[in-house]
Amino acid sequence: MSVAEPILLTPGPLTTSARTRQAMLVDWGSWDERFNQLTASLCRQLLAIVNGADSHCCVPLQGSGTFAVEAAIGTLVPRTGKVLVLINGAYGKRLAKICEVLGRDFSTFETAEDQPTTAADVERLLQADRAISHVALIHCETSTGILNPLPEIARVVADHGKRLIIDAMSSFGALPIDAREIPFEALIAASGKCLEGVPGMGFVLADKHSLAQAAGNAHSLAMDLHDQYNYMASTGQWRFTPPTHVVAALHEALLQYNEQGGLPARHARYADNCRALLQGMGELGLQSFLPEAIQAPIIVTFHAPKDPRYQFQDFYERVKAKGYILYPGKLTQVDTFRVGCIGHVDRRDMQAAVSAIGEALREL
Amino acid sequence: MSVAEPILLTPGPLTTSARTRQAMLVDWGSWDERFNQLTASLCRQLLAIVNGADSHCCVPLQGSGTFAVEAAIGTLVPRTGKVLVLINGAYGKRLAKICEVLGRDFSTFETAEDQPTTAADVERLLQADRAISHVALIHCETSTGILNPLPEIARVVADHGKRLIIDAMSSFGALPIDAREIPFEALIAASGKCLEGVPGMGFVLADKHSLAQAAGNAHSLAMDLHDQYNYMASTGQWRFTPPTHVVAALHEALLQYNEQGGLPARHARYADNCRALLQGMGELGLQSFLPEAIQAPIIVTFHAPKDPRYQFQDFYERVKAKGYILYPGKLTQVDTFRVGCIGHVDRRDMQAAVSAIGEALREL
Repeated sequence: MSVAEPILLTPGPLTTSARTRQAMLVDWGSWDERFNQLTASLCRQLLAIVNGADSHCCVPLQGSGTFAVEAAIGTLVPRTGKVLVLINGAYGKRLAKICEVLGRDFSTFETAEDQPTTAADVERLLQADRAISHVALIHCETSTGILNPLPEIARVVADHGKRLIIDAMSSFGALPIDAREIPFEALIAASGKCLEGVPGMGFVLADKHSLAQAAGNAHSLAMDLHDQYNYMASTGQWRFTPPTHVVAALHEALLQYNEQGGLPARHARYADNCRALLQGMGELGLQSFLPEAIQAPIIVTFHAPKDPRYQFQDFYERVKAKGYILYPGKLTQVDTFRVGCIGHVDRRDMQAAVSAIGEALREL
Repeated sequence: MSVAEPILLTPGPLTTSARTRQAMLVDWGSWDERFNQLTASLCRQLLAIVNGADSHCCVPLQGSGTFAVEAAIGTLVPRTGKVLVLINGAYGKRLAKICEVLGRDFSTFETAEDQPTTAADVERLLQADRAISHVALIHCETSTGILNPLPEIARVVADHGKRLIIDAMSSFGALPIDAREIPFEALIAASGKCLEGVPGMGFVLADKHSLAQAAGNAHSLAMDLHDQYNYMASTGQWRFTPPTHVVAALHEALLQYNEQGGLPARHARYADNCRALLQGMGELGLQSFLPEAIQAPIIVTFHAPKDPRYQFQDFYERVKAKGYILYPGKLTQVDTFRVGCIGHVDRRDMQAAVSAIGEALREL
């Protein structure tokens, strides 16, 4: 694929297509009907990815993905609610922090960073604490790339009559989630991840009934998804100034997503990227942190080389000089670095990145 | 000036230069040193506009301008504080609403939409209520285009030992504000206004001492400016994913701003745009809502034509077909529409817009 250098092998912002970036060469009036149509089309396409048009509504929100996660917690968890936060990495911890800052009652269940939460864990936790009203899960934890067993956990949560909040930031659009089979209160993701838009907006796919009942819950004016949705539903416009160019880029990225075959094709390409990466890195003697069974094809954490001459910053700069931007590790106990498999890149890009990494290591 | 059609004569998003939009054709790694340098350069340039490098720090924030206003109130007004909100339009009302949602004590003082708040009003209000800790003022109210007397009000607020929060959303960069002469606790603006960037981020120029003491004030994780600033100061990076392309566009817009002569030149061009607009519209028999003395050269509110055949939507579509996007009125009592003077447009664009408006009116 032809892209502007350097290629970003990061969990987002990532490398986008030239067509997506060129969609930002137009200035849009945020009050204009043409822009309203763009927003409506974008929301329809986002809901279609999870077959959620009947059950959920799409609420786009200005800001990064974390803004959308905070907005979902603030709007959908009543002030008397209690959230069980399932943690195996930095994003789970951030979600718990959001509950704390917002003053929502919560408890946490933490497993090691290479240990998925299991449905049995959730079953036990829900039986032990009847006060829990919502369960919050990170689908794919970007800290490591670990995949948590969403369908099994969703079933347990539903069986207990509790509500599931899914942070699908780095999985949405690439890993299958079907709203007709997986009951969820809210699913949160953002523009600059597997949909291959540019960063600047998030969105929440929220259960229609729950959102309708969420008036007055929010701790914030700007992050009130109930107001955001109702204003948009009645006017077609965003409640406050939208990031027009980011919206246009995401819309263009979604058109390409669908032209290329939608979720199955996106999943296949990322899985292929991930295989090419793991194979090539294995040949260089670099081991991935996670076993393959729980590795999502989104971002891979590698153990740092044992060689005492290795130092991440130097390594990073050398690989960057060859045209590839890597990502630092986010583990406290183990020295690692990360390589993303997502973005407008394919197997050949991954192979070329592996070659660059190999050269950089030989130089060290 | 050569721009992509249609030209936006709106208070933002507005028409940007091709060079600014082309800055979005590159994907940036948000962790990369080059992007950190871009952010640092952007913050330096924003502070320089108000000569604020010694007294204030710049805290950029993801989202629209309203997100930054809410973040400033939430972070800088302690939970025991009380805000006096000065209102003469929709944005003053929004600021009061933010205080209400955030649970900050506040009182309001409202004048008619064509009536600036005076320093004498503020003097009287501060004498009457010693509990007030902060005064919040909209510098230029986009509802009408009215300019409030910032220097005089700032002096009274300082004399009382109170703290001033300035919503300078639609004036920053075009109307002079000097931090060495006008004491302020916080000044809030956004990327997509007079700096002629694209929408998607705001920023707060916050008093250094106040921000340093603001730990734990905020009602929100994502909108905590104290944390946002400290993280950026220690890492050079944004705390959560930045809108990389929006940041790059604003940086490029600031380079052009300085090349073109900075604030005096920007002010002069907008004032010239405003004069050309008022003169041309006057010749068409269209009267502006505000007297000239309190009209900022940012956006002008016009009385709708009295002709019964006039209907805004029809008028808007006809003008748009000729290449210009106008803005609806925001007054409840009087039928009006608005025309912006800001963005990458000059006197000739305004004259051409007036011609298009004249033709549209004749067609009706």
